[in-house]
Amino acid sequence: MNGADLLCETLLADGIDICFANPGTSEMHFVAALDRQPRMRCILGLFEGVVTGAADGYARMADKPAATLLHLGPGLANGLANLHNARRARSPIVNVVGDHAVDHLPFDAPLTSDIESLAKPMSHWVGRAETADGIGQRTQEAIRAARSAPGHISTLILHADAAWTETRASVPTPSAPPSPAAPDGARIAAAARALALGRNTTILASGRALREEELALLDRIASRTGARLMAQQSNGRMHRGAGRVSVDRVPYVIDKALAAFRETEQVVLVGARTPVGFFAYPGKPSSMLPEGCVVLDLTDEGADLSAAIRALADEVGISGIAPRLGVRHRPPVPQGKLTPDAIAAVLAHHMPPDSIVCDESVSSGRDFFNVTHGAEPHDFLQLTGGAIGIGLPLAAGAAIACPDRKVVVLQADGSGMYTVQALWTHARERLDICTIVFSNRRYQILLGELANVGAGAPGRNASRMLDLDDPAIDWVSLAQSMGVEAARAETVETFEDLLKIAFSRPGPFLIEAAI
Amino acid sequence: MNGADLLCETLLADGIDICFANPGTSEMHFVAALDRQPRMRCILGLFEGVVTGAADGYARMADKPAATLLHLGPGLANGLANLHNARRARSPIVNVVGDHAVDHLPFDAPLTSDIESLAKPMSHWVGRAETADGIGQRTQEAIRAARSAPGHISTLILHADAAWTETRASVPTPSAPPSPAAPDGARIAAAARALALGRNTTILASGRALREEELALLDRIASRTGARLMAQQSNGRMHRGAGRVSVDRVPYVIDKALAAFRETEQVVLVGARTPVGFFAYPGKPSSMLPEGCVVLDLTDEGADLSAAIRALADEVGISGIAPRLGVRHRPPVPQGKLTPDAIAAVLAHHMPPDSIVCDESVSSGRDFFNVTHGAEPHDFLQLTGGAIGIGLPLAAGAAIACPDRKVVVLQADGSGMYTVQALWTHARERLDICTIVFSNRRYQILLGELANVGAGAPGRNASRMLDLDDPAIDWVSLAQSMGVEAARAETVETFEDLLKIAFSRPGPFLIEAAI
Repeated sequence: MNGADLLCETLLADGIDICFANPGTSEMHFVAALDRQPRMRCILGLFEGVVTGAADGYARMADKPAATLLHLGPGLANGLANLHNARRARSPIVNVVGDHAVDHLPFDAPLTSDIESLAKPMSHWVGRAETADGIGQRTQEAIRAARSAPGHISTLILHADAAWTETRASVPTPSAPPSPAAPDGARIAAAARALALGRNTTILASGRALREEELALLDRIASRTGARLMAQQSNGRMHRGAGRVSVDRVPYVIDKALAAFRETEQVVLVGARTPVGFFAYPGKPSSMLPEGCVVLDLTDEGADLSAAIRALADEVGISGIAPRLGVRHRPPVPQGKLTPDAIAAVLAHHMPPDSIVCDESVSSGRDFFNVTHGAEPHDFLQLTGGAIGIGLPLAAGAAIACPDRKVVVLQADGSGMYTVQALWTHARERLDICTIVFSNRRYQILLGELANVGAGAPGRNASRMLDLDDPAIDWVSLAQSMGVEAARAETVETFEDLLKIAFSRPGPFLIEAAI
Repeated sequence: MNGADLLCETLLADGIDICFANPGTSEMHFVAALDRQPRMRCILGLFEGVVTGAADGYARMADKPAATLLHLGPGLANGLANLHNARRARSPIVNVVGDHAVDHLPFDAPLTSDIESLAKPMSHWVGRAETADGIGQRTQEAIRAARSAPGHISTLILHADAAWTETRASVPTPSAPPSPAAPDGARIAAAARALALGRNTTILASGRALREEELALLDRIASRTGARLMAQQSNGRMHRGAGRVSVDRVPYVIDKALAAFRETEQVVLVGARTPVGFFAYPGKPSSMLPEGCVVLDLTDEGADLSAAIRALADEVGISGIAPRLGVRHRPPVPQGKLTPDAIAAVLAHHMPPDSIVCDESVSSGRDFFNVTHGAEPHDFLQLTGGAIGIGLPLAAGAAIACPDRKVVVLQADGSGMYTVQALWTHARERLDICTIVFSNRRYQILLGELANVGAGAPGRNASRMLDLDDPAIDWVSLAQSMGVEAARAETVETFEDLLKIAFSRPGPFLIEAAI
């Protein structure tokens, strides 16, 4: 057994049996080790942004980490944007990043770079495996860090010589995921007291608080105390649909967010963070809360959020109060020219139960959330860190975590082009993913922002940076070129027909929705 | 005038009039400023790896920097792999990376990250523009650092409020590129003395030493002293073809590189670095030079390499010695099934004079270099840092720098998928680029490396990570989906016909070469 085998066995012993990968020469011994170990499932992404985005989607749905395999500093760099999103989603991931043999590093070979400096901004834990004998322990440290609540990014730098050297070290005893800290009784009591004051209060939820049971408890608490229950603007995963509690999210547009909190006197954070502007704007505040608004945080980051919610429910007293559950609702579907709200309405009709919706629709998909609260129950996965290019990879990971569920991607065209290579992984792994591309042929959100800065109508330079219509991207050919069946819809009727086809059978399908 | 206008004007004043861009909300004031200034040409890439790779290609051919415009940490991260290559190519680039308003940073909004930590590994200079009044000076610092010899990467972090705030600061006086340091006479003399010793000597050249005039001088020096003239393994730009001095490069494969230097007693570095293995291998050395080999470096990095070569020529004495110039040579073209060497031979026949060849052919293109020394004179641009995904973007930048020259991309299929979005920029800007995709449907170089580590025939996991044939990528549809005309060749005859068409007219064209 060499160090690479030990790494592979340690991952498997701790329950990590999926490896999203794009390896290079320095990782060949690890590739050989993976090849000797069929229990590990290796999934290739044709670009590292696909690899890390898929690991994020997997973690969100499997509630446990996958490994990634990345090629030195530049390979890691290519995956950083989606690691940024994963970090914001609190997804656990164990990255394995190859590096030169220890003695080769000082020679500054062409692929050498400062991997730590690249890794740190998007990682909670960074470590090096420098010897074969030490690989088991280092790997378990990385796994432990990734699995600590609420979920973290670990980056293990694997030196080529540590991988290729023989070792007699044994595989570490499998470790259980670290238990989250017990909730702090004083904080629970303080939140309960605040909720009893009769002030204008918002309970702001994110993370595990957005799962079905937790939402039901929070709704009963809100009902009991007169508070408003809301979700953070962007969340890693949210349970929604008929039979579940329906919650609004903090609006993205800053003036709407400010308006949403204008009367708020206190906010109880339940796995959420204090709402701030996604960007700063001249003359507008950074915090969305009015001056003097009191903020109480129900837990520390590493605490057991579900237990804290149950404790709060006990403290507040919710017996006899039923959660307000949504009912199945089929909104009216407009006919004719395809629009974002028509797409949302059609989806509300047809999404199968337990769908997983990956939302990177940016400006085009804002209707979806409002229109689908009465759709069949589904999971809703968002772009958490604002780094575009996550939709298609996220769907790949979610589909691998949940092979029996339909994954629906709401994909803006501009963002979709960032990691379009993910479609190839959809096809290669026969993933059950229906991708809907909102083809408006422009960076619509930026045209709105440009207007907001008072630049007037875009001239030549602004248009050349914000329009995507010259040439128009043919998403059908693009998908087909990578083995994904695809078709284009310009009317609601065609879209509905195509969606029914996509939902009637497993496997990847892409609909270019001309809006 | 606001800070963004001042930034734009400062770039223009110092001769930077091309901006490769993919902006976001935090850069909208800069976009508006660019929109007010038609002298700046803005070129959109649909992914930041396209943006930075194009800036590299532009710098290599224009011998001056372009600007890039990137969206916060994740946008920069997406561009880092090609900045890594640019750094290794010594290309000057001025990156402008947007960041939040200064006061918004502590709120840790979703897109916040440690931009310095991300930028430093791939940048020689990193600075922040925190106030509108200071933007002119900071920008000029960034430009000065980028233009200092032999070419550097500057990363200027532009806070949104610095961009949007009004300023009365004036545009700094245009600055000339900093002069490189004069060559060190003692080093010149030492190199001349070493060359006179009659030892087995290699003159190893890179950087500006690979331009036509410098190569001719070096060849005459080699001829006079009996030394061997070689080029570094990978170089940013090299003049080649009929009428020029033809030099071999240090081989990529480690055993061949070791063999190439086995008898070498001394090496004179002329803009090159001591040859080291691209990767480390068990039991093999990191340096390619035999023990005891003397290494002399003709200059420091920042020195005037051309002047140093002229001084060395004077010191050695080369009058009466003519450079050994290559003659136009048309190699025999095999017929039938298309192979990499047939592609090289056809190119040697048909490449028009002054073509620019961007080589990311990886394993498939090694024949090209050997077969084309007698082709029409051309520039040869390589993957300098080993971070794949540069070919298509590099070509875009080179074509923009040299609109009257044909650009030929030798593109491996696996690497081409990394930044395939660049094809859209080829189409949008009507760039005169002929892309040849070596479609072998696998990471061929890695299959070779896997065999080298003694892993035997690849099993399921290795195949799933190294084969690209399930599904096969249809490069013709892929290119057409982004507006690039394309066709597929399976025989030499078809390839030759297609190449003639591509070379007979301007504009982008892609040939999928099935090998």
